[in-house]
Parts: sequence; C-alpha cells; structure tokens
Amino acid sequence: MGLIVQKYGGTSVGDLDRIRNVARRVIETVKAGHQVAVVVSAMAGETDELVALAHGAGGDTPLAREYDALLSTGEQKTIALLAMTISQLGQPAQSFNGRQAGIRTDAAHLRARIENIDTANLREVLDAGVVAVIAGFQGFDDGGNITTLGRGGSDTTAVAVAAALRADACEIYTDVAGIYTADPNLVPSARKLDRISYDEMLELSSLGAKVLQIRSAGFAMRYSVPLHVRSSFDDAEGTWVVSEEEVMEQLLVSGVTYNRKEAKIRVRGVKDQPGIAAKIFSPISGAGIVVDMIVQNLSQDGTTDLTFTVEKACYAQAIEIAQRVANEIGAAAVEGDENIVKVSIVGLGMKDHAGVASKMFQVLADEGINIQLITTSEIKVSVLIDEKYAELAVRTLHDAFIGDGAAEPAQES
Amino acid sequence: MGLIVQKYGGTSVGDLDRIRNVARRVIETVKAGHQVAVVVSAMAGETDELVALAHGAGGDTPLAREYDALLSTGEQKTIALLAMTISQLGQPAQSFNGRQAGIRTDAAHLRARIENIDTANLREVLDAGVVAVIAGFQGFDDGGNITTLGRGGSDTTAVAVAAALRADACEIYTDVAGIYTADPNLVPSARKLDRISYDEMLELSSLGAKVLQIRSAGFAMRYSVPLHVRSSFDDAEGTWVVSEEEVMEQLLVSGVTYNRKEAKIRVRGVKDQPGIAAKIFSPISGAGIVVDMIVQNLSQDGTTDLTFTVEKACYAQAIEIAQRVANEIGAAAVEGDENIVKVSIVGLGMKDHAGVASKMFQVLADEGINIQLITTSEIKVSVLIDEKYAELAVRTLHDAFIGDGAAEPAQES
Repeated sequence: MGLIVQKYGGTSVGDLDRIRNVARRVIETVKAGHQVAVVVSAMAGETDELVALAHGAGGDTPLAREYDALLSTGEQKTIALLAMTISQLGQPAQSFNGRQAGIRTDAAHLRARIENIDTANLREVLDAGVVAVIAGFQGFDDGGNITTLGRGGSDTTAVAVAAALRADACEIYTDVAGIYTADPNLVPSARKLDRISYDEMLELSSLGAKVLQIRSAGFAMRYSVPLHVRSSFDDAEGTWVVSEEEVMEQLLVSGVTYNRKEAKIRVRGVKDQPGIAAKIFSPISGAGIVVDMIVQNLSQDGTTDLTFTVEKACYAQAIEIAQRVANEIGAAAVEGDENIVKVSIVGLGMKDHAGVASKMFQVLADEGINIQLITTSEIKVSVLIDEKYAELAVRTLHDAFIGDGAAEPAQES
Repeated sequence: MGLIVQKYGGTSVGDLDRIRNVARRVIETVKAGHQVAVVVSAMAGETDELVALAHGAGGDTPLAREYDALLSTGEQKTIALLAMTISQLGQPAQSFNGRQAGIRTDAAHLRARIENIDTANLREVLDAGVVAVIAGFQGFDDGGNITTLGRGGSDTTAVAVAAALRADACEIYTDVAGIYTADPNLVPSARKLDRISYDEMLELSSLGAKVLQIRSAGFAMRYSVPLHVRSSFDDAEGTWVVSEEEVMEQLLVSGVTYNRKEAKIRVRGVKDQPGIAAKIFSPISGAGIVVDMIVQNLSQDGTTDLTFTVEKACYAQAIEIAQRVANEIGAAAVEGDENIVKVSIVGLGMKDHAGVASKMFQVLADEGINIQLITTSEIKVSVLIDEKYAELAVRTLHDAFIGDGAAEPAQES
C-alpha cells in the first residue's frame, strides 16, 4: 500500500460529468490499496471568468490581495464538488482549501512561493481512509491572507504536497500520453519517453514544453518526488520523471523543443568598457522584464554589439528602454526582430559527449538555416533562428539525433 | 466619528454596476467621518447556481461540510470584487472571509451558530482607515472547517459583527424603505415606522415579515445593537430597531402581519391522559419538524382534540406521523387543512392594555371571519383563519388598530 498524489487540470474537471470520471479514477486507485490525495485546478473557463470580473471591478491592475482572494474561489468550488462526488459514489472524501491543507507561502500575491506544508490535517484524514481533495494554485501567508502561485500553480501544489507527504508517486494527469521527444504535431516520428531525468524535464519546461510547469519540475527534483506524467483519458503508463540514476536508457538527445514566444533585440556600436552591460540590463530587469539569451560580440575598434532576447509580450517596452539607454551611452543603433524562434536539444547524454553542438550546427547548416545566437548548458544547446525555419529545424534535428522510435543510446554513439 | 456596519444583500451586489453603487455609498459614509465595515451576500443568482451544482454532484443530500465549502465561495467572490472596486475608487479596502474575520461558529453545517468573533484583525484594519469588507453567511468551526449560517445568515453576520465591534449602528440595506405597519402591497394605508422595539421586530420576523431574519433580530436585541433598516435606493432614513425605552411613540399595535406558510393538523378523539401530547409531538419534532401553534380543546367525555400547525413543506410528513401515532394511541381521526393563514397583531402597547385581543376577535367577527386557533404572547395575538380571508383580515385589523397614517399612541387610548 502506497500514498499517491494525483493532479487533474481544469479540462479534466470542466463539468460535473468529467468530475465524476475523475472521482471514479480516484476510487479505483483507493481500491488498488492506496491512500490518495487529489489536487485539482479550477473548472475550465472558471478562472477566465474570474479574471474578467476582476478587471471589471479593479481596472487594469486589480488589488493583488483581492485578485488572489477572488481567483482562489475557482479551485475551492472544484474541491467541494469533487469531494461530494467521491462521497456520493461511496468513498469518504474531504476537501481542503490552501489554508486547510496547511500550504504556507510567502506574501508575494499572484506568484507566491510555497514555504512549507503542515501536513497534520492531511495525514489525519488520509490515515482514516478518507480521500483528501486539495485546492491547487493557492496557499496562505503569515498574515492569513490568501495567496496564489501563478501559472502552472496546481502542478506545483501537487508536487509540493507529494514531497511533504513523502508520497510514493505524484501523478500529473494531462491531455497527452506523456512527455515526447518532440511535439508530435510537428514531428510524426516523435516518441513517448518512458523515463526522463529531472534535469532534462527542467530544461524542457524552461524551453517552452507545455507538459509540466518549470517550478513544479524544479520542486520535484529538489525533493526527489517520483513524477508520473500521464493521460487522463486512458490507463496507459505515461512518462516517469525521476533522478538521473533511475533513467536506464540515457539518450544522447532525449528531446527537441522550440519556443516562439521570444523576440530579439540588438544594441549596436556599444563602447566596449566595463559596466556597459549593466547600464543596459539594469533598467530592463528593473522594469520586471526577464532577459533570456545574452550574447556579446567580440570587440572591434573598441566597440561591440550586445544581443539578447525577451518575451514577446515585453518586446515593445524592452526596445523602448534599450533605445533610451542607447542614446545615453552613445550606442550606434538599436535593432529588433520578432520573427525568431529558439530551437533546443536536451539530453543527459551530451554531458559526456563532445561534438553534440557541432553536429547540431552542421545539421542546420545542411538545411541552409542560419544561426543567429547560441547558448548552451551542460545538457542543452539552444539556437536562435529565423521563425520560418522552426518546423524544418525541429524535424531535421529530431531525425538526426533521435530518429523514428529507434533512438540510439548515448553509450553506444 | 463612529463605527458603522453596513449590510448589502444579493440584489444590491448583483452585478459590477451595482457593486460600484455600493462602493460609492460606502465611500460616502467614510467621507462623513466614519469607520465602515461592510457585510455582503453572494451576488444574486450565484447561490442558486452553486446549489444546483451541489445537487448535481452530491445528489439530494450533498455532504454538508462540502456544501458549506461550496456555498461560501459565493460571498468570497463578492468581498474580493467589492474591495477591489472600493480601492479602485481611491479608498483603501480589504476583504475578510469568515475565517479571516474571526467568525467562529459551532460545527452545525448549513445552520451554524456564531459562538464568538475575534475582532483583532478587523480592528487593526479599521483603525488604519481601511474599509473592512466581510463575507456574510459564513464562519469556521474549531476544526477550521467552513460553516454557513443558514437562511438570512448575512443579516446575522452583520448584527454579530456590529455587536462584537460595538458599532454605533448596523445598517441593513434592503429593497424597501423600512419596516411597515403592514405589507404595503396589501394595505395601501400602511405606513413606515420610524422606530420599533427589538421585541416587536422579533415577533414580526418570527411571524413571517421578510425584512429581517429572526436570528439577527434576536442577536441585535441580546447585544443592544442599534439596527437601521433602510433602502439601498435612496438616502432617506428607514426604520430604527432599538430598545423599548428608545421607542418614543409606543403604539398599541405597531404591525399587522400574516403567514401563509403553515398548515393545520388536528388529531381528534384523543384520550385525555398525562403523556398523550408527548406521544404525538415527540416523533414529529424527532423528524426535525417544527410545530408552531398548539391548542388542546377542553376535555369532553374523557377525550379531547389536539390541533397544531407545521410548515407547509413538512405537512405531508407530519400528517403521516400523526396518523401512525393516532393508530397507536387509539385516537378517533386525523384531519389536515392547508388552506389556512396565520394573522397577527404585534405591539408593545398591548402589554399594558387589556382588551386588545377581544377587540381583534370582534373586528374579525364583524367581517364574518371564523377563528380556528388563537395564540398570544405579551406583545402579540395570532389567529388562524381560512386562507381566503387573509387580505381582508389584515386590511380590517390595520384600519381598526393603526388607521391611515395617524396611528393612535398607546398612552392615549
């Protein structure tokens, strides 16, 4: 007998019929001999309605504390309905909002971080054979204020609860069968991975793969929570996200992914002297804009170019700031480009293998694709290319490194 | 400078426009130099939607704990939206759900009773010049479970908060101008009372007048909270509910009211011996059915009749129980009648005046209205009559005791 944490997103609990399906799956897990804690999101559409109400009442920037109080009602509805439904089907269940579940966070409304979880209440209920139904996405701070965790918050709740309860597994139910070597819509030969390491998952999440939110992947890694990403439509095994040692088949490259959400800005003719980068990036990060890739060209004639990427949503603001700073520091020009895509390969195997990056560049060059920027980490290489080559690049790299279902294990390459 | 508690019902906060109107009225009260705590209900329609969802998920009798958790989200939405709106209009405001407001109740879900209110959080916020926006209808029990107070719960919350904060006034905003001597739709000459005593209000509430819920009237009396029942559509003074000493103009009869929601049951030919009433009423109250009027006829030939009234909603069940008991105790017959109405006159003045009841009976007799049952209290006389005479009885009694706006003070009668 084990303890399983299950997480269901807004689509899986979108109406009473779907909630009944979730209830049945929960009960099956109980009947298989497990204790079960379920984390749920707001019913699909509910959060959008609440956001619209908030802006109707509070304008462009509604009071953050009240915004959280409002949004948290979405999950609170789902937990009550799911607990009722499970009980109605004969299995005792009890709902827990963030506070009742003991999920204490910092006071950063809209994007709070979980500080600790007092599991006493949950434990008591689980030990009594009752299913605990927990509101995702929400917690409370030291002042008793309701907080929310921001995007993907329900995943984070599930992983944090699993960590705190030392659960045997944390099952993340989604509308896909697991984690794929590439987007199956783009690459027909993409295959589902049976296992992937936390590090790889973290890179994939941060690079734009939508299956698991990056903070929850980081949380799972830090606390070694065995994650199981699987489909809510069938009982097939999905993808296990586990520690590096537990990944049997270490692929040279386990995933090819892309991100269209960034835009490129280049500041040209910048005097190459100490402190010049800080002059440009301090006001940008001061405006709350996250800079992703940064590359500085080799200096020529005492001047250099600085190129970086930001989220497209912040592009206009970032370029305005860059323009202002460029004037102040006497830079030659500011150029921007929104038609770019970041394509990345990720794989534990490349840690021990030279030549992965250069093979990537060659593959792209063979297709006539020009590389604008490069960044690397121990298990990842990302390149910025013209957006129109996105699909071609992903398919070609997938063919070259992973192939059609017969991926070459790293140790043999 | 005083402290005012204002309560707005579901219609007053039915959409964002109406919430803005409430926000403006709150801010006016702040500008007049007062600290303000606002208690609100769920937006009109919201609770009905939640109830429908609950029955969809949990069947006829959804789990009470989860039902409360679900319903409480209605008020939580309103408080967040109202706090945002007030802030958006430039006045700091903060929302409080039942737990944040420190409203501790017993554990009786669906109809919890407030045990005490820890006002520390509210005080701190009010003293900082911030408007406290409090969810009506909800609290929490010792186990941290969410509870709801049952029908009229937001009124009770408002009065209890006013009592705990020792507020200078508790303003109940409704869609009528105040408390009337009779239903103005029925009696065109009915007039608004400037003041009414807690005792009278309590009788009127318990007799079916819909302006104020009976538990909140009782609460107000117990803690001497000055209540002001007024219209949310204009600034006119409504009706103050105050202690007896503060009611200047003591009317012989200050209100005529009626209640169509009861049905009559008569058990005939009951042996007149000790314990026989208990045999009949124990199983009825054991089924959770509230019995209102009870009259036992004078005994004849060792047998008697027992007549009583119950809520129409429980009529079928009550008559079934009565039939069963009648068989057991060998009573002659059980008869029932749903076409009855209870008409009452209420007034502090009648305490010191004999003859009010007999005048009432004479007035009804003059109209050919037969009286089926009578019950009295110190400041009330109720009669049960054929339902078809309801309007006639109320109008005639109002004319006889109160007249058209020129009510005769008790001390001069």
